[in-house]
Amino acid sequence: MSDKFNDVVAESGFYWPSFDVYRGKVEAGGFYDYGLLGVLLKRNIIEKWRRMFILPYLEFTYEVETPVIMPSIVFEASGHVEHFTDYLVTCSKCGRKYRADHLVEEELGKRGIKVKTEGLNEVELTGLIRRNNIRCPACGGELSDVQKFNLLFKTTIGPYSENVGYLRPETAQGMFVNFNRIYRIMGKLPMAIAQVGKVGRNEISPRQGLVRLREFSQMEIELFFDPQDSSCPYINDVNDVKLRLLTEEDVAKGVNEPRVVSAEEAVRMGYVANEWMAFYMALSVKFLKSLGVPEEKQMFIAKLPNERAHYARMVYDHVVYTERFGWLEVSGHAYRGDYDLSRHSSYSGQDISAVRRLKEPKVIEEHRVYPNPSRIREVYGNEAPLVLKALASVNPEELVRELTSKGEVVINGFKVTRDMVFIKTESRKVSTENFIPHVIEPSFGIDRILYVTLENAYALIDGRIVLKLPRDVAPITVAVLPIVSRGELIKVAKDIRINLINEGITAVYDDGGTIGARYAKWDSLGTPLAVTVDADTLKDNTVTVRDRDSRVQVRVKVQDLVSIIRELLRGKSINEVAVERNLQLIVRSQ
Amino acid sequence: MSDKFNDVVAESGFYWPSFDVYRGKVEAGGFYDYGLLGVLLKRNIIEKWRRMFILPYLEFTYEVETPVIMPSIVFEASGHVEHFTDYLVTCSKCGRKYRADHLVEEELGKRGIKVKTEGLNEVELTGLIRRNNIRCPACGGELSDVQKFNLLFKTTIGPYSENVGYLRPETAQGMFVNFNRIYRIMGKLPMAIAQVGKVGRNEISPRQGLVRLREFSQMEIELFFDPQDSSCPYINDVNDVKLRLLTEEDVAKGVNEPRVVSAEEAVRMGYVANEWMAFYMALSVKFLKSLGVPEEKQMFIAKLPNERAHYARMVYDHVVYTERFGWLEVSGHAYRGDYDLSRHSSYSGQDISAVRRLKEPKVIEEHRVYPNPSRIREVYGNEAPLVLKALASVNPEELVRELTSKGEVVINGFKVTRDMVFIKTESRKVSTENFIPHVIEPSFGIDRILYVTLENAYALIDGRIVLKLPRDVAPITVAVLPIVSRGELIKVAKDIRINLINEGITAVYDDGGTIGARYAKWDSLGTPLAVTVDADTLKDNTVTVRDRDSRVQVRVKVQDLVSIIRELLRGKSINEVAVERNLQLIVRSQ
Repeated sequence: MSDKFNDVVAESGFYWPSFDVYRGKVEAGGFYDYGLLGVLLKRNIIEKWRRMFILPYLEFTYEVETPVIMPSIVFEASGHVEHFTDYLVTCSKCGRKYRADHLVEEELGKRGIKVKTEGLNEVELTGLIRRNNIRCPACGGELSDVQKFNLLFKTTIGPYSENVGYLRPETAQGMFVNFNRIYRIMGKLPMAIAQVGKVGRNEISPRQGLVRLREFSQMEIELFFDPQDSSCPYINDVNDVKLRLLTEEDVAKGVNEPRVVSAEEAVRMGYVANEWMAFYMALSVKFLKSLGVPEEKQMFIAKLPNERAHYARMVYDHVVYTERFGWLEVSGHAYRGDYDLSRHSSYSGQDISAVRRLKEPKVIEEHRVYPNPSRIREVYGNEAPLVLKALASVNPEELVRELTSKGEVVINGFKVTRDMVFIKTESRKVSTENFIPHVIEPSFGIDRILYVTLENAYALIDGRIVLKLPRDVAPITVAVLPIVSRGELIKVAKDIRINLINEGITAVYDDGGTIGARYAKWDSLGTPLAVTVDADTLKDNTVTVRDRDSRVQVRVKVQDLVSIIRELLRGKSINEVAVERNLQLIVRSQ
Repeated sequence: MSDKFNDVVAESGFYWPSFDVYRGKVEAGGFYDYGLLGVLLKRNIIEKWRRMFILPYLEFTYEVETPVIMPSIVFEASGHVEHFTDYLVTCSKCGRKYRADHLVEEELGKRGIKVKTEGLNEVELTGLIRRNNIRCPACGGELSDVQKFNLLFKTTIGPYSENVGYLRPETAQGMFVNFNRIYRIMGKLPMAIAQVGKVGRNEISPRQGLVRLREFSQMEIELFFDPQDSSCPYINDVNDVKLRLLTEEDVAKGVNEPRVVSAEEAVRMGYVANEWMAFYMALSVKFLKSLGVPEEKQMFIAKLPNERAHYARMVYDHVVYTERFGWLEVSGHAYRGDYDLSRHSSYSGQDISAVRRLKEPKVIEEHRVYPNPSRIREVYGNEAPLVLKALASVNPEELVRELTSKGEVVINGFKVTRDMVFIKTESRKVSTENFIPHVIEPSFGIDRILYVTLENAYALIDGRIVLKLPRDVAPITVAVLPIVSRGELIKVAKDIRINLINEGITAVYDDGGTIGARYAKWDSLGTPLAVTVDADTLKDNTVTVRDRDSRVQVRVKVQDLVSIIRELLRGKSINEVAVERNLQLIVRSQ
């Protein structure tokens, strides 16, 4: 299937490798362009996601759009500057560079040795290279020791060369740094921040077309919750979904057959961290199913601790079976704990927290510290004002803690002892306390989802390609076709098309070739509906609507066209519509 | 107005400065986040643009999405590596850096001297600084000579540090490098390629909030046409639009009062390069008008030759009058000639061209060159095979031209004389010829357009803020409000809201506070319609629909709600709908 499939997606304008005209002149793999059909399909997939994950949940979900370029400190805090690396190895003879883990797997694979390198560090990878005498596959030269290579695209913000910025490798950080502001707007937890946007990952040597890109698009949600209450009030919305899970235990044991459980069971059995995580996993299954990927082709595979990103406490990869790449990750579901908010709080020096109401008010002790000026003057003489200033600058609770435990503390170079201050203790009743929320993150790779949507839609019927894309995500919804290319029919067809566009329905006009050839063409481009204008249209103002998949046609009044198309878009079959509206059904071979 | 306006946009979640939590820790101005209302408004503006500029014109318009990161060669070809610069000046004492032209204008402005620096080069700017003894405004230190500073964000693609890439400063280049592929798909000129996406410009010191950003979004079209036929068959679509122009001549003379002409007149009078340029300028006026910017607040100002970008033959800035920034450019209309395609053709070594049919077939002469082996062997002996190989590698037409004019030519170090080859001339009749298309580019800054849309919508009515956003671009279309927060009403209201969402209408549910307070709140957020559920709803399944701007309410059946909202979205007034459908009109003070 691969070749024909590839032809369809490139030639019909879904996507193709970028900078094609410079091929051979630049090393710039891992970038793809979307053509017209790709742009429309991608947009429809995003809109569908928003209709499933955001719009019904606006009472707790807040969508943002934040920059792709972010200052260095954000990724120092997030841990990406330190941890977001792959392993690089360089040929000492020809200078070629390889991703070390892939090279080891491939070269040993050629010798019939199967190794799994995920989770190995640079020392272990270097060891594998040395022990197996793996050499440069291009020139046979000796390979360097394996090094870490940071995958952040680095740049500079403004005219100061030390002012480093990076392209974000995930949209997530733009949401974490906005937690305080949006918590203020939303006022309570649980609260979700969502974002759709571009990210960059400077892969060492991307291959595999659309599924491993250096620049791609994500749809992400950060769900913030109180770790003392991780219940999800919407868990019943996904009662109808079964999760197919390979749990951490299964993966560790090498089990391949997934457990099939409901979201609620998955939590009860301890397979999934909590209800929010299970809720979004189940919604993801529904989402992929609505794009044409059957549930049986979907699965969640837990990542083992040594395979997980640095921030994650639990991760499930949501994978989809593909003909070309086997099981392919399309979304990741991570329990990030309080890692990100804690780190940004400490790097920014700001209090990033939420407030919870205590079940019962509690009494807390607060301290005030007053300097003892005469004692300070005795010890420090003329420098006493500096000591007073230093004392005023420190947090009183910390000062008291130090003085009580050690008897002395050094501030700005001055040793302060217990006798230099008076400490006053006050009790206060409080009914709330601050805490750092925990985070569940469902994260979707749009480009891969677009790929699996196309692959699942691809069908060869009687030797012809038909792209059976779901009606509501197909790039073009309606092709308006005059049965022959004749003056009056053309005008009516063009008017119908513009009217559909004005109603928000993506429609094209086409009068090239026989009607059969045009049906075949629009079938191959995934267009679910064709509207045909013929001689009868001029007499009685009716047209035929043809359904791509059943090839059934109905005769409808032009003034009913928009509402019938809307019903079909919402999922009614053409037969249902025909029966309900008492329409004439026509079954043809094409 | 400014302050209240700023409060509304930030507090209600339209947009705010990015990385706020790190304020004071990083120098990263020129980046803004969009909150929920901003995201929705931005998306609606983009969709409206697509409905006006792309969807009705799919027969010649092709939308793409290409990467933000592009390899260096693309911007060497486009001229950006050389020309995309601003002028930078550094304080030799404190090291602070300034944008030189702005600094000169500001510092001389403080002394009451008004200068216009646009078009001055680094020598002239340095001269102004020296002659006027302008010093560092922060520390009084002496300023360096003015230097060029390149505004491209620079990065590296992959693990080789010499493999430079840049973030695109305009979406345009992604379209130019795709010309050949898309011309093959579309098959003829005129042809437009369109793109919506992010761009980066590493401004020296951005200020002014949303109107000068380092990362922002563009909507661009590159219209390719045959310079022998620049007529636009759609020029009559914009007959109803008046262009307000300050032509190059007007600008040079200092005229401030625009000429008011139709698109067709603008071309006939020579004010605008051709019909395509005038067509898109007129569509732009319609577009801004549909966003609420009156025609009288719009104008096109020609750029003088020394103010134009390096690629442009004619440029009009489309400016809109704003309260905060005066006349603000929201789109640029450039005639780029064949600059970009010629440059990419020469940098890539690929033929980038279109084909035109000749009015009459013409006869062209083609040459074939055959080597004369015996003569070559006489001269070069054993090296003869190398000479034969060299001869085979060159273009025969060029070889013949050189040999005919000079009698000899050097190839790969071998001197080849006329007697070493036989030349055969063949005549051929051709009916087509290749040429490099010319380009008209309308380019829109989405963030600025969003700003002017908000500014024009802002109104203070009886002391309350009402955002009079056009219904079809308002972030949230409908607020569904139970008149009191009571069990049954809540359920009905929530059901109505979910049904609207499923119909593709963005709706929220709100039961907090008095009904008057809720009307006021949603008015201030720009929501054009409120649907109120009350006790009568439970009896007769009717609700009221309230129009934000007229405050008129109508009583409608729940089952008619969607179609009525759709009519209102398409521009009907609530009174029209009431009359047509014989609905009960209620006029209230709130």
